[in-house]
Amino acid sequence: PDEASIQAAREREGQLTKPPGALGRLEEVAEWLAAWQGKAPPRVDRPRVAVFAANHGVATAKPVSAFPVDVTQQMVANFQHGGAAVNQLCLVHDAELRVYEMALEHPTKDFTEGPAMTDSECATALAYGMMAVEEGVNVICLGEMGIGNTTAAAAVCHALYGGEAADWVGPGTGVEGDALSAKVAAVQQAVETNKAAMTDPFEVLRCVGGYELAAIVGAVIAARVGRVPVILDGYTCTAAAAILEAMLPGALDHCVVGHLSAEPAHAALLGKLGKEPLLNLNMRLGEGSGAAVALGLVKSAAACHAGMATFAEAGVSGA
Amino acid sequence: PDEASIQAAREREGQLTKPPGALGRLEEVAEWLAAWQGKAPPRVDRPRVAVFAANHGVATAKPVSAFPVDVTQQMVANFQHGGAAVNQLCLVHDAELRVYEMALEHPTKDFTEGPAMTDSECATALAYGMMAVEEGVNVICLGEMGIGNTTAAAAVCHALYGGEAADWVGPGTGVEGDALSAKVAAVQQAVETNKAAMTDPFEVLRCVGGYELAAIVGAVIAARVGRVPVILDGYTCTAAAAILEAMLPGALDHCVVGHLSAEPAHAALLGKLGKEPLLNLNMRLGEGSGAAVALGLVKSAAACHAGMATFAEAGVSGA
Repeated sequence: PDEASIQAAREREGQLTKPPGALGRLEEVAEWLAAWQGKAPPRVDRPRVAVFAANHGVATAKPVSAFPVDVTQQMVANFQHGGAAVNQLCLVHDAELRVYEMALEHPTKDFTEGPAMTDSECATALAYGMMAVEEGVNVICLGEMGIGNTTAAAAVCHALYGGEAADWVGPGTGVEGDALSAKVAAVQQAVETNKAAMTDPFEVLRCVGGYELAAIVGAVIAARVGRVPVILDGYTCTAAAAILEAMLPGALDHCVVGHLSAEPAHAALLGKLGKEPLLNLNMRLGEGSGAAVALGLVKSAAACHAGMATFAEAGVSGA
Repeated sequence: PDEASIQAAREREGQLTKPPGALGRLEEVAEWLAAWQGKAPPRVDRPRVAVFAANHGVATAKPVSAFPVDVTQQMVANFQHGGAAVNQLCLVHDAELRVYEMALEHPTKDFTEGPAMTDSECATALAYGMMAVEEGVNVICLGEMGIGNTTAAAAVCHALYGGEAADWVGPGTGVEGDALSAKVAAVQQAVETNKAAMTDPFEVLRCVGGYELAAIVGAVIAARVGRVPVILDGYTCTAAAAILEAMLPGALDHCVVGHLSAEPAHAALLGKLGKEPLLNLNMRLGEGSGAAVALGLVKSAAACHAGMATFAEAGVSGA
């Protein structure tokens, strides 16, 4: 974080025409933007929503999703034609939407049988994700689409944090009953099968993650280097980012979590990361939708901080 | 509420390209908009933020605020010159801002000594508030500015709901210590002095409210009649609206509460009204700021509902 920008943001905030602290969390967000953009006042005039789409071998092998795997490709087409939720949210919040299609015809390997990705596949996906952080983008929302990916997210969390597989598994797109049991069993089996190989968090990502999770990891790294604050989305997106926090505590300090997902394990995951989400709207769609809604708050924070008059400018008496 | 529009909204929602219920509270907001606009799909393309500004005799008579009473007028000038938080928020969310200045040179009477307003003053303020709901506006955010008005809000709540005066009093713009004690005493005295006169909720408004609170009551009524869904702001705004709920349960069904204010009594007040706020950002500024931030969610809800493709349109397989 840039200490000079933090200091400048704090000083300005104290002079704006409002009682001290009256904008609450919006003031914290403004300071966080300044810290990680290294700019005072920070700007959010070119936000991007990046959605990474990929397929998962486990979703073909096991009944872990309420939807067929073809839906990943179909939803990518829906994004391209402007018909998904995230398209509407980008219009409302003036954000640029980029959809990154990751070899949908080549899903990862079924990770209940062995590693989901080879070293080179995982590295390629990471690098692909890094490309989403382009020059000029000043806030990035990260999202994903991939039938089966809450199974991967649960496996990542189970591998990183232990507990029971069931602690990290939820309905995802809406599985229940036998399908939910199959999902728990798949997560348990994935972690058991790959246990020996998962010697560090990146190996967790490679063994039980997926291409879109790896891309999110890459984007979070590139954003740190490129001074682009990040808005994370729900369970799958946060699970991917958790890989980095497990590697190096503080690695997600340039990220806020846009919303608390209705996927039950998201709250526990945020507890592990010490992150307080901006919104709690019972959403559980993925595709960056919660992050895109939260972008409205982040833009609000930046606009108040940069645009408000000071007491002196406005001739308003202080307290 | 318009049952046909609710039905149409529900039917459409079930066909949109997402798992059922995956947009959580945004889906409820879309249905609520349809219900009270009487339109399916509902539209939020002309939102207005109405801020009512007035002065309070009690703020001159007693040390209830951290700021001098002149600040009401100074902040109105700040609104007019575009320097306040609400100006920036209206820019971010493409909302029209209207500031209604209510005879600032004529504050209400000090309500610790007798009624704040005469019948005719209160009626005039109500009527003035009604004018904020103009033809074509399809969502209205209500806010207020008035040094001393959290004292009036506390007095309204204490009169409506009983308890101790201290239960309803908080720091407002930032009073503490002796000033906070003086504020509690003023609220207690206000309710005792006016007890005999406060025979119904409108008399509570007249005796211990204020012009901007009466205007908010008028705007909420006019919005119901004019089919304009309302976003309420924080403690003072919600306390004003509570007058109507006390008159007629259900009178606020066309209103959502934009945010939970950091003013401690707001949570208790929302409990009395059975309202769940959209946001919880520790804000406590007033001037419609929390409602204006929440407008971003309401616009998001409307945009997803109206703009998303159905499964059939997008060729996406269902669950």
